[in-house]
Amino acid sequence: MKKVILAVNAGSSSVKVSVYSAELGQPPAQIAEAQVSGLTAAPATLKYLRGAQAVIKNREVDEKVNGQRDAFSLILDTLVRDHDLPEIKCKDDIGIICHRIVHGGDYTKPQLILDGTYHHLEELNDLAPLHNANSLGIVHLCIQELPGARNIACFDSQFHSTIPEHIRTYPINQDIARSNRLRKYGFHGISYSFITRATAEFLGKKPDEVNLIALHLGSGASACAIKAGKSWDTSMGLTPLAGLPGATRSGSVDPSLVFHYASDVGKLSPASTKDLHISRAEEILNKESGWKALTGTTNFAVIAGQSDDDGGSSSSSSSSSSSSKRLAFDLFVDRVCGFVGSYFVSLRGRVDALVFAGGIGEKSARLRAAVVEQAACLGFALDERANNEVGAADGEGWVVQDVGREGVTPRVLVCRTDEQFEMARMCAEDEELWGV
Amino acid sequence: MKKVILAVNAGSSSVKVSVYSAELGQPPAQIAEAQVSGLTAAPATLKYLRGAQAVIKNREVDEKVNGQRDAFSLILDTLVRDHDLPEIKCKDDIGIICHRIVHGGDYTKPQLILDGTYHHLEELNDLAPLHNANSLGIVHLCIQELPGARNIACFDSQFHSTIPEHIRTYPINQDIARSNRLRKYGFHGISYSFITRATAEFLGKKPDEVNLIALHLGSGASACAIKAGKSWDTSMGLTPLAGLPGATRSGSVDPSLVFHYASDVGKLSPASTKDLHISRAEEILNKESGWKALTGTTNFAVIAGQSDDDGGSSSSSSSSSSSSKRLAFDLFVDRVCGFVGSYFVSLRGRVDALVFAGGIGEKSARLRAAVVEQAACLGFALDERANNEVGAADGEGWVVQDVGREGVTPRVLVCRTDEQFEMARMCAEDEELWGV
Repeated sequence: MKKVILAVNAGSSSVKVSVYSAELGQPPAQIAEAQVSGLTAAPATLKYLRGAQAVIKNREVDEKVNGQRDAFSLILDTLVRDHDLPEIKCKDDIGIICHRIVHGGDYTKPQLILDGTYHHLEELNDLAPLHNANSLGIVHLCIQELPGARNIACFDSQFHSTIPEHIRTYPINQDIARSNRLRKYGFHGISYSFITRATAEFLGKKPDEVNLIALHLGSGASACAIKAGKSWDTSMGLTPLAGLPGATRSGSVDPSLVFHYASDVGKLSPASTKDLHISRAEEILNKESGWKALTGTTNFAVIAGQSDDDGGSSSSSSSSSSSSKRLAFDLFVDRVCGFVGSYFVSLRGRVDALVFAGGIGEKSARLRAAVVEQAACLGFALDERANNEVGAADGEGWVVQDVGREGVTPRVLVCRTDEQFEMARMCAEDEELWGV
Repeated sequence: MKKVILAVNAGSSSVKVSVYSAELGQPPAQIAEAQVSGLTAAPATLKYLRGAQAVIKNREVDEKVNGQRDAFSLILDTLVRDHDLPEIKCKDDIGIICHRIVHGGDYTKPQLILDGTYHHLEELNDLAPLHNANSLGIVHLCIQELPGARNIACFDSQFHSTIPEHIRTYPINQDIARSNRLRKYGFHGISYSFITRATAEFLGKKPDEVNLIALHLGSGASACAIKAGKSWDTSMGLTPLAGLPGATRSGSVDPSLVFHYASDVGKLSPASTKDLHISRAEEILNKESGWKALTGTTNFAVIAGQSDDDGGSSSSSSSSSSSSKRLAFDLFVDRVCGFVGSYFVSLRGRVDALVFAGGIGEKSARLRAAVVEQAACLGFALDERANNEVGAADGEGWVVQDVGREGVTPRVLVCRTDEQFEMARMCAEDEELWGV
């Protein structure tokens, strides 16, 4: 029996929903995709594709659309009202809704959410208040308004449940670590799960036969050491803050730094609510740092000198000067290469491929060139032409491209990761999640 | 003209003073050494060596000796009263006193401290209140009570002033970074300066010809990438907290962690004073974490299974169980190897040697074996017998020993670092510091 699966990916300023037609045990087939962007910078806009056809292109949405929950409602309406999408004639046609949840605590696999188990998800909020709240409003709405659908929580952390104890442990008081659940969890795991399968297939191996150094580099960025198809280490930690810097995130800094930053960093942010306790420090290091703080722009293409268009997000000319962009670029390359070297040793040098993914990983040939050049001592080498032409030859259809120099191992790959597909796949592959 | 140099190394629970007879431009010759230990766990004890002769062995000291300043006074009295030490007949015979200061801010070389410049050092306290205060009381005492001596501040951070901007910068608001002086400084630099010279000499090269991955592993631990004899990167940061874990220090953790640890982490510690503002978080992560928190002991030999004697500092049997010791050992090896891999890439694979130093680096053959085995993919290899016999053949006289496998490059070395000697050498080498 076919089911319609909605895969929901709620970020801090956008909600993306991919729609699949699926059968148990088969790879899902995408039939539509919709996205509301700009939730933090009005007016928000709606995009809607049916198949490959752009039905709605960046339409400004009503200003009453306020937050992730409203954005999801709008997308749901758009899908139901589209008479040319026969798979969804009414809400009841939606069989499964899978939700990307950033922090899954100790969960090692996706969870079916029932009305009575919703509080389990709410408890996770304390671990990552800045991140999980984006999704929970949508989950709650789905439980209430789509009672016939199965809601599945897919966690960014679950792929990393295989990280061994000596790597995931923080050397702090272990009684407090246990009671407050303080350890490395890791994130971007839905993406790393996709990357593992896709690159294994590309290399002609089984997923449990590949060792990878995978880089998910987007406005949030992380690195992952994948050993025999499983996460062995990753750069993010208790929260997504640790590790690499991102568009507005500092990444790892001296843990003492926040107390030298401002006197109020331990206090709660004005953005806190009764349920969400967000310290000023978390807000500063997650939302007011990263390459935006260095250059004034969150657009990495501008930083890499691959685009002069700063998307209207530049600040004063001095802060987005070429020297500050160069600093941000060099700093990012340095931090990325640090993890490449670290994970190469952690994997004892047995690495099938270095994989670039995420918006920057896919699109910035210059970033890939700089990282591979610096890591040449580990045996990585680029085919310059292939690197500069990623995506050009195969149009929209490609998933993995090889940009490594001919005859060299380990390989260098670019992977177009797809978190929504991976979530839908998990649901279509597992009888318990799929239901009867 | 010969001068007597006192090199003072004040830690959190001890004060060590080495006494040298020196001539300008010549390597200083050590003539005596004294140490007061156990300042935080009464009774403190005094050791005193004249030449190689142990004159005083672990004598319990008067309980009125309270803190680093008193400990230094006691050592000074011991030196002056020893009639068999003809170089110091009275306090006026002391020409130079060099003081190890942990955090030197932007200073790139040792500083002559005059009565009127003492406040420059006090200002640095804000950057590292837990660390600098140990030394400043002694500096103040020397200015007052030894008016004929030249006081020189040698900074642990100065060796790292060559770290390039893209490595030392934190991606945070740069106005605040500048005004609050928030960047990577790095520490253990007096030791890395010694290591660079000593290993270069051992390898038959000039200091500015060597590339090293140096590991100073003691109760405080750090790693340093040395490029052409200069610091290129190091694991500690704004403060000594960042990077590797230590006896009671967590090393790098997710910067959000402290806010999940306890609700009062942003508040000041009861140990704070009018002048020293120490947050609870800094205290917890510096003093109540590390392998002590994992195992109950601060003695790494016990953790490495090289000693059953836990020095009386074990806690309950469960926390110092073999599984917790194994966890602490594996965790430390993992974190150390992370920096080895990271710095190998940062140095583009051009590495002359991996150098182990510090108490653990010198003494733990098992730690060296585990690190080198994991980093074998970078080309490092041990001579097992040489590794197990470090120090045995040459008694007390050795400075660098080669434990690498024959014919393999890069080399693996063990260096007996000597911060006091390095400080004295700096003063004897520089006319401005030496004076007329």
